[in-house]
Amino acid sequence: MDFSAFYNILAKYNSYIVTSHIVPDGDGIGSVLAMMLALQKAGKNAVAVVRDTVPDKYIFLPYARTIKKDFDGKYDVIISLDCGDEERLGFEKPLKDLGKIVVNIDHHKSNTFFGDINIIDCHASSVGEILYHIIKDLTIIDMDIATNIYTSIITDTGSLRYSNTTPSCLRILAELVEKGVKPDFISRQVFEKRSIESVNLIKMALNTLEILSDGMLACIFITKEIMEKSGAKEEDTDGIINYAREIEGVEVAVLFKEKEEGLIKVGFRSNDWIDVSKIAEEFGGGGHARAAGCTLKATLNETRENVLNSVKKYLAREKS
Amino acid sequence: MDFSAFYNILAKYNSYIVTSHIVPDGDGIGSVLAMMLALQKAGKNAVAVVRDTVPDKYIFLPYARTIKKDFDGKYDVIISLDCGDEERLGFEKPLKDLGKIVVNIDHHKSNTFFGDINIIDCHASSVGEILYHIIKDLTIIDMDIATNIYTSIITDTGSLRYSNTTPSCLRILAELVEKGVKPDFISRQVFEKRSIESVNLIKMALNTLEILSDGMLACIFITKEIMEKSGAKEEDTDGIINYAREIEGVEVAVLFKEKEEGLIKVGFRSNDWIDVSKIAEEFGGGGHARAAGCTLKATLNETRENVLNSVKKYLAREKS
Repeated sequence: MDFSAFYNILAKYNSYIVTSHIVPDGDGIGSVLAMMLALQKAGKNAVAVVRDTVPDKYIFLPYARTIKKDFDGKYDVIISLDCGDEERLGFEKPLKDLGKIVVNIDHHKSNTFFGDINIIDCHASSVGEILYHIIKDLTIIDMDIATNIYTSIITDTGSLRYSNTTPSCLRILAELVEKGVKPDFISRQVFEKRSIESVNLIKMALNTLEILSDGMLACIFITKEIMEKSGAKEEDTDGIINYAREIEGVEVAVLFKEKEEGLIKVGFRSNDWIDVSKIAEEFGGGGHARAAGCTLKATLNETRENVLNSVKKYLAREKS
Repeated sequence: MDFSAFYNILAKYNSYIVTSHIVPDGDGIGSVLAMMLALQKAGKNAVAVVRDTVPDKYIFLPYARTIKKDFDGKYDVIISLDCGDEERLGFEKPLKDLGKIVVNIDHHKSNTFFGDINIIDCHASSVGEILYHIIKDLTIIDMDIATNIYTSIITDTGSLRYSNTTPSCLRILAELVEKGVKPDFISRQVFEKRSIESVNLIKMALNTLEILSDGMLACIFITKEIMEKSGAKEEDTDGIINYAREIEGVEVAVLFKEKEEGLIKVGFRSNDWIDVSKIAEEFGGGGHARAAGCTLKATLNETRENVLNSVKKYLAREKS
């Protein structure tokens, strides 16, 4: 890719806000920090601003505690990372009012090209991967930058378990480990920390597991009562649907989350041959073939009945 | 490394048994298959023999169904892969009686150099990594060989989460993905298949979770009754100790497995500063600083009391 437009900006301007989407993930936080550190190493005035709370598990990242929710004053350039559209950055004002130039670096297909300069590579595993190429021509990638980029890549590839695991991202990881990054240390921080409350949640959620449709359908119910009794946080529900999806023979997994009485969030996953986005769309939701969701205003029992009937219908039809 | 002694063997002999340790893992099965396929491509008569059942999750590997438990006739060369000593191969006769030459390729520090030719590289992440170098000079690494080597490496590095994840194994993975290996497909087979019985086991095991010593000690009890009620297999207990180890603040995790009444297997894990091999040694067991075990002839209650008292003592002493 050609980064010369971006390098021209760097030659011209001195002050930078580096930002990413709300509900931040490892690629968002890791790439914001990598970019901020690289700009600072290049002698620039750069601050990291994310309009949401940094999840606990990313606090170990070098300089994570310097990320601000707010900022004062005017900056020349706003760099948006890993964000498909301007709204998801969570600023109250349009980006144009915050700085002179907007640089938009992303790997989402759905990116709206909202920047003055847009560096969009949908084939990159993560924004961390794009930044590796940008930064290595800008400055020496030190351990702090390397740790942030490594975390970006492994979180967005699910520790190399997703289909976006490419030869090029594997080779970048090799370079970063050569610079001293410790894969086991980072994986422990990002993938292997649990609160006792989250273990309670798993236990209680698994107690609700049901297998239907000759073993092709598995569902889990997280009621408000379970959330309260377990003491778990909202983010602890991430991944619980996989206990259902990974059971042998299961094609569709459904997670029912009771946000409040009469408001149910439904998550769908499939393994091979059911396009769950179509099921979610029936209920006003959407998503991808293998992961989709919708939110229903109804009791848990009504939602259960309606949604499972629809899934059963799809399974019976597609199976034949 | 110098593989010339091995290549000389190949130039001289025609028939090969390729084997690995009992209780086979991904590196054992993957490397046996990769070596067998490479030898066959090089025009040799080669069979894969493993003296144990191939776990279900590795049956997807190319040619896994050709692995035999037994063999007839005489072979020139026995190639042992990923096995520290001759006994763990599980043959009734000494290797010398099965063939003329024994080749021992391994990455365990404890290897006893039982071969006529010994290729031992303790710095290799896996035997699959060593075989990549051996095979690429022997023949073209096709998709079948690549899939087997890829599986060897990712299983022995825990999907790149362990400290043996090196730049060189990452670069090999990149080469293999370039040859067409699908990381998401393999990860799904190896890491993301669960039986309903194994989910039942997790649920029942988590019900026994106890946190002690101000949150530094977590333990889980798998009784005989739990094994029977859940219907889980012995291999399903793998990894359950991590639910305890990964809880924030926990330093030592202990898993008590009641093999039969009066016979308890105890597994220890630690995160940072307790050498659990010393605790295991107190009870006649052993292992490493971060993972160790022992087996006690006593009731579950007696074992619980004795072992936890010892762990608490270590925690109190090392903490101060």
